[in-house]
Amino acid sequence: MKVGHDHFRSIWVESGEVRIIDQTQLPHKLVIKSLETLDEAAAAIRDMWVRGAPLIGATAAYGVAIAMRSDPSDVGLNRARDVLTATRPTAVNLRWALQEMVPQLATFEPPDRYERAMKRAGEISEQDVATNSAIGDHGLELIRALAERKPGPVNILTHCNAGWLATVDWGTATAPIYKAHHAGIPVHVWIDETRPRNQGAHLTAWEMASHGIPHALIVDNAGGHLMQHGEVDLVITGTDRTTATGDVCNKIGTYLKALAAHDNGVPFYVALPSPTIDWQARDGVSEIPIENRSGDEVSFVQGKFADGSVGQLRISPENTPTHNPAFDVTPARLVTGLITERGIASASAEGLAALFPEMAAS
Amino acid sequence: MKVGHDHFRSIWVESGEVRIIDQTQLPHKLVIKSLETLDEAAAAIRDMWVRGAPLIGATAAYGVAIAMRSDPSDVGLNRARDVLTATRPTAVNLRWALQEMVPQLATFEPPDRYERAMKRAGEISEQDVATNSAIGDHGLELIRALAERKPGPVNILTHCNAGWLATVDWGTATAPIYKAHHAGIPVHVWIDETRPRNQGAHLTAWEMASHGIPHALIVDNAGGHLMQHGEVDLVITGTDRTTATGDVCNKIGTYLKALAAHDNGVPFYVALPSPTIDWQARDGVSEIPIENRSGDEVSFVQGKFADGSVGQLRISPENTPTHNPAFDVTPARLVTGLITERGIASASAEGLAALFPEMAAS
Repeated sequence: MKVGHDHFRSIWVESGEVRIIDQTQLPHKLVIKSLETLDEAAAAIRDMWVRGAPLIGATAAYGVAIAMRSDPSDVGLNRARDVLTATRPTAVNLRWALQEMVPQLATFEPPDRYERAMKRAGEISEQDVATNSAIGDHGLELIRALAERKPGPVNILTHCNAGWLATVDWGTATAPIYKAHHAGIPVHVWIDETRPRNQGAHLTAWEMASHGIPHALIVDNAGGHLMQHGEVDLVITGTDRTTATGDVCNKIGTYLKALAAHDNGVPFYVALPSPTIDWQARDGVSEIPIENRSGDEVSFVQGKFADGSVGQLRISPENTPTHNPAFDVTPARLVTGLITERGIASASAEGLAALFPEMAAS
Repeated sequence: MKVGHDHFRSIWVESGEVRIIDQTQLPHKLVIKSLETLDEAAAAIRDMWVRGAPLIGATAAYGVAIAMRSDPSDVGLNRARDVLTATRPTAVNLRWALQEMVPQLATFEPPDRYERAMKRAGEISEQDVATNSAIGDHGLELIRALAERKPGPVNILTHCNAGWLATVDWGTATAPIYKAHHAGIPVHVWIDETRPRNQGAHLTAWEMASHGIPHALIVDNAGGHLMQHGEVDLVITGTDRTTATGDVCNKIGTYLKALAAHDNGVPFYVALPSPTIDWQARDGVSEIPIENRSGDEVSFVQGKFADGSVGQLRISPENTPTHNPAFDVTPARLVTGLITERGIASASAEGLAALFPEMAAS
């Protein structure tokens, strides 16, 4: 999407180089980095210069390609797989992308591997863009219908960053918003700051400002009050993992917004590419393990100091114990619908099976 | 309550001086200030060295007394009232305390006013301590009953700071917790950080650590997940204003926790001194105006830098629009009970009227 007058993706090839945005510097600095070696690609994932499942997958795919430029041997190919796998051991999309790349490349002669790998990584990236664009088209119709029922902008609340920075382009939760904006439908986005890592304040706020979409940043505590007073017409979030029954595992705090939406009759939609559906899982709360992350994410907050430098400060007393679950599960009963690349499904086994019969049949 | 081995109150008289804790420096520094002039007392309230309705009231009462030491004339008395009223124009307890002090003092001869004022301010403070202690005694029985039903500590979640730092001693939401701890009942407190001003991270975490009560700091997003997994036995919050029907206006985000408690069968109690009941209000969501505070509270976070100094950093892009409602209303249907100094009432007109017939009759 746009950053001022320029169209950006979160990963792209320019002058033969793979380039990314160092997202750890956002929103305070737009730093573009070229990934020239396997180690740089691994660092980009491990140190979270890139984040978001689809973008991690695309970066891993390009990482394999970059490795093939300097060492296209079988040893080099296996080393690329091992180094990249180790960067984020639990990232499902990372493993998926490596599985898409490595076995197929092994069937080609080493001199052909770099070119083949770049082509395949490009295809993976384009596929992500097409998927998110389709999600946007389906979600757009929801926003259009809301716009026809009331004057003024459609107020959309979102949590965390399921934006283009988390994918290759469009984003998932943000794709319908961008599409509505492009269609001339007035939208206004309430952005949850999304503690502890503040992806809303850091990334979604920057995306919306960069693309020129009206928005306001709110604390995570505010959404319920806004819904009580008719200030939210629609909630759209992303998801890390969705059960075959429509339970949604997403960034911590999503469940609280879903409860408030339900209590106030506000439609609550989740945007997702179908690969994030876990067709084996039936009960999100009991079956999906929730990662507990470092308590430093709770005790410290990152931002920009008065002198312009970026760093952290401590908000709590020294040695305060913390607990930091990173995700929560929103039961399907609180989800109005799931916006997928094939259309909108009810959040239920039946709804998902109707759109993806070939997956649900297993 | 305790700070290490010493027993503290939030305001006290020592060597003839009125002393307070400068709460803007907590949790990073314990700074005690003597209030020696009317202007210092006014600054203490206006600049939020003290906060919390009961403590603001007590500080205003002592502020009048301090003013009487240097100018006990009628002019001096009226000036004290005017200067203190202007510090926090919307604080109900501030006006109440001044009404308790000024008209009565005016009936005494100027030479007697300082002594009378100090005595009356002391009575107001002691009354607050007694009220909160009684709230604690009633709430203790809830915690005792929960402790008898399960092994291990009773896990209590609280939002914001309704602790001794917000009152003269004991606190409101924290009084049952302190009483349970003193009674040897094992408790563990989940502390919401309470964005945007982080009173949980700054003040409640410091209170619990200072008194030696087991606790953990969590982000405001985490409570729903904890309740889904049986990690919360009881929620207790404070309230700024409670309707005659039991709707609770409290720090923004309280409503979201009440929804999660309701969804998971977790008891949700609100602790309150009866003067915070607004006997005229019947519908909190429609009748209670919600203060929208400066957006800088959303954009900036306060804490301690690596060099030990206390300051702020910016979390959002420059010029990001913000919206900052400071309170929300939790409908009575989500509140299990109201813990008052006279006992526990159901959150309903009938429940409150049964405990306070003389107030409800009007």
